[in-house]
Amino acid sequence: MFPCRPLKYAQAHSERFVNELKDFIRFPSVSAQPQHADALKKCAAWLAGHLRRIGMERVRVLPTRGHPIVYAVWQRASGRPTVLVYGHYDVLPADPLREWRTPPFEPTVRGEALYGRGASDDKGQLFTHIKALEAYLRTERALPVNVKCLFEGEEEIDSPNLAPIISRNNKALRADVALMSDSPMLASDRPVISYAQRGALRLELEVRGPEQDLHSGNFGGAIHNPLQALCEMIAALHDSHGRVTIPGFYDQVRPSTATERASMRRTGPSDAEILRDAGAQRAWGECGYSLYERTTLRPALTVNGILGGYQGLGVKAVIPARALAKLSFRLVPDQDPGNVDRLFRHRIAQITPRSVRSAVHTLSSARPALMNPNHPSMRAAVLAYHKGFGATPVFLRSGGSFPAVRIFQEFLGIPTVLMGFALPDDRVHAPNEKFHLPNFYKGIATSTWFLAAIGALRRPRIETREKEAEWSVAYGD
Amino acid sequence: MFPCRPLKYAQAHSERFVNELKDFIRFPSVSAQPQHADALKKCAAWLAGHLRRIGMERVRVLPTRGHPIVYAVWQRASGRPTVLVYGHYDVLPADPLREWRTPPFEPTVRGEALYGRGASDDKGQLFTHIKALEAYLRTERALPVNVKCLFEGEEEIDSPNLAPIISRNNKALRADVALMSDSPMLASDRPVISYAQRGALRLELEVRGPEQDLHSGNFGGAIHNPLQALCEMIAALHDSHGRVTIPGFYDQVRPSTATERASMRRTGPSDAEILRDAGAQRAWGECGYSLYERTTLRPALTVNGILGGYQGLGVKAVIPARALAKLSFRLVPDQDPGNVDRLFRHRIAQITPRSVRSAVHTLSSARPALMNPNHPSMRAAVLAYHKGFGATPVFLRSGGSFPAVRIFQEFLGIPTVLMGFALPDDRVHAPNEKFHLPNFYKGIATSTWFLAAIGALRRPRIETREKEAEWSVAYGD
Repeated sequence: MFPCRPLKYAQAHSERFVNELKDFIRFPSVSAQPQHADALKKCAAWLAGHLRRIGMERVRVLPTRGHPIVYAVWQRASGRPTVLVYGHYDVLPADPLREWRTPPFEPTVRGEALYGRGASDDKGQLFTHIKALEAYLRTERALPVNVKCLFEGEEEIDSPNLAPIISRNNKALRADVALMSDSPMLASDRPVISYAQRGALRLELEVRGPEQDLHSGNFGGAIHNPLQALCEMIAALHDSHGRVTIPGFYDQVRPSTATERASMRRTGPSDAEILRDAGAQRAWGECGYSLYERTTLRPALTVNGILGGYQGLGVKAVIPARALAKLSFRLVPDQDPGNVDRLFRHRIAQITPRSVRSAVHTLSSARPALMNPNHPSMRAAVLAYHKGFGATPVFLRSGGSFPAVRIFQEFLGIPTVLMGFALPDDRVHAPNEKFHLPNFYKGIATSTWFLAAIGALRRPRIETREKEAEWSVAYGD
Repeated sequence: MFPCRPLKYAQAHSERFVNELKDFIRFPSVSAQPQHADALKKCAAWLAGHLRRIGMERVRVLPTRGHPIVYAVWQRASGRPTVLVYGHYDVLPADPLREWRTPPFEPTVRGEALYGRGASDDKGQLFTHIKALEAYLRTERALPVNVKCLFEGEEEIDSPNLAPIISRNNKALRADVALMSDSPMLASDRPVISYAQRGALRLELEVRGPEQDLHSGNFGGAIHNPLQALCEMIAALHDSHGRVTIPGFYDQVRPSTATERASMRRTGPSDAEILRDAGAQRAWGECGYSLYERTTLRPALTVNGILGGYQGLGVKAVIPARALAKLSFRLVPDQDPGNVDRLFRHRIAQITPRSVRSAVHTLSSARPALMNPNHPSMRAAVLAYHKGFGATPVFLRSGGSFPAVRIFQEFLGIPTVLMGFALPDDRVHAPNEKFHLPNFYKGIATSTWFLAAIGALRRPRIETREKEAEWSVAYGD
């Protein structure tokens, strides 16, 4: 099973691979902003064309109610397992634009890194798998496993159209394991397989006061400023111990076992490491938990943005008529986004001052997910990392939310192997996002090895183990 | 002294006057935004040309460190008093632009009102005096008083360059009384002369956390979000009784006399009227004071804007690296802006959580001012209003801040007559600002009558009374 020729091919063509990745990044495929809808279409078409060129079959661009999904298969490995390769070609908004050293959609190599929005999240990481497939198809004229590719354009907006597509096509999408690279390593020599993701619930909280903006000279002191009321309400959502003050919020949080917490202490990042990665000097949050636990085992509530009043240069003496906050929850098993939504609305009703009115708008949600680290596909991933990076990966919980993982678990009954190739300082979601090019090359090798290792497994074995894994999702239980 | 011919002239030319006012409003003379600096220059040049055309003399555009001042005189009324006509040709930013029914700098007449940024504040009100001067000069070939015009381009940013210009030229600017129209009436038949203004202190409060924006999935729950910390700090600046929690903040507030409070209750707007003008359903603020008192007799602290995190459509899972609030104080006698600045910084140091860093930037300040309502120029204004609007004005305190009023008091030793022609629903500082055209015409008549009435006073009388007034600034003392 040694994938000698594919690995050599990838090495020989690495420069071209980087140039192709640059072409991929040039599409400003920002899924959150309607003005970029056309860029998403063009990016999907480019991706489909690329899959066709490398030899994937039945390539299709599937329309959804939002941005399209790119689908392709290669199913000639009769009797072998099927890997569902998942990734997303959409990216987050690039603002604040002025903080980018080079424009976000003009990818630029500086030193060992490729800079651009989406370079790491997720175009670069997704591309490692495409290049591994190409390396196999161009050298061996075959893959060691059956492969289905599913690349969506709405991951950054919580994949609102993924579940309907998968539930309607769950026969066509049947697979043994999903593969996805969209998460960070601890360091360039410390790979990570994520076996748990937090869920998400994103909301807008709007506060309305006077019918129109008022002159703060004429009315300051007599009218409750919606922006101030919003601040008061946001401040009231946490107590002084960093806990969310929504009654019932923690009721459904599954207690963590002593075994898992001990294992997390052994393998996970230390408080100092997390602070260093964050570029922060001091920790904050729920007492009694390490920072790794706070960002993975425990739920969180974050203010992602506030809009209100005058935002330009200088001064404008205004009491704004309304103010708006963008909030997101991170949820853990067994919290239910719908239930948290209800509790939040109840709390907001409690803390809205009588002098203003408030409204809550739910934008999207995703359930938390847990996988079994002992699944055979996980062991294949350990081998692949060992070959690709020369290091044994650790199994960690992740703080982020991948709706896809939960959807694959629910609708296809399969686990997802999360082999992350990002580095902690990749500035994912921030200006000057980058992808470490040595990780791009090693990621291609790792993906190649993963396909080889899965191909060496007999198909029924994966299936049996997955049935069992499905009912044993908590690590250490 | 009956200004018969000027009044007839103004009536006959009212349509042209409106068209000229439209030309004036078309300049986007937004003083707060550097990109409009050229528009301010052009607007000043246009204004100077206009003053020359109507017959004013020694017209000059005086450069300052910021936007220019337009200056003109007419000094042929030997032995008569001198009126310093003051106004400002700069305007506030027009955003949010999408809320304007017609573009802010394309003035449009709808019904009885002229819509546009600056239509009321202050281009329209300033223009009433220019048209009164024109009416006199075109019909009588003379003014009944000596006049000096001083129109600045930085009122909306707290007149940072007015005091230096006036202190350096206080001989050239010597006058007996200043005249200014930049304030609201209670209703179209209830004129107001403002005898007190609050001072102002504008600041920015910046909170910094991690070195760069972070993914809120990966770090949410472990890092203190600067935006949340900012909300917590803003919430901590008021107590539940609507009082500012800065230690020492109220120490210098001059206690109001029972006489003045009784007079304010009699003549001032009721709580219901203020709420109606604000378009607000409920009051807020310092217990124990009427809304009129809260907005005039009492100081206030307002959040004018917050910048932080993702502000676009949809969602972006980010913990922003920094957040910024624009804040403004309104101050009353005998609060000193420099002292309040020190107290505020001390309080911010107290309430900044250890998990973030904060910084305060002082943008500008203006001292509060009080005038003597019994000054002879005030009685001339009462007569003028009576003639122009057919109604007797009330003397009220104003909540806004006019640095010029305090500067004229300090550097020229003269009171300012604040004859406001704005209506409470003019949406000054808000989208769809308008000027009520009947008030434009009546304002011109009122200004004409004011010039006539001041011209009928012997000069030494004003001067004597002013000396006395200068030492007796508090109403009712």
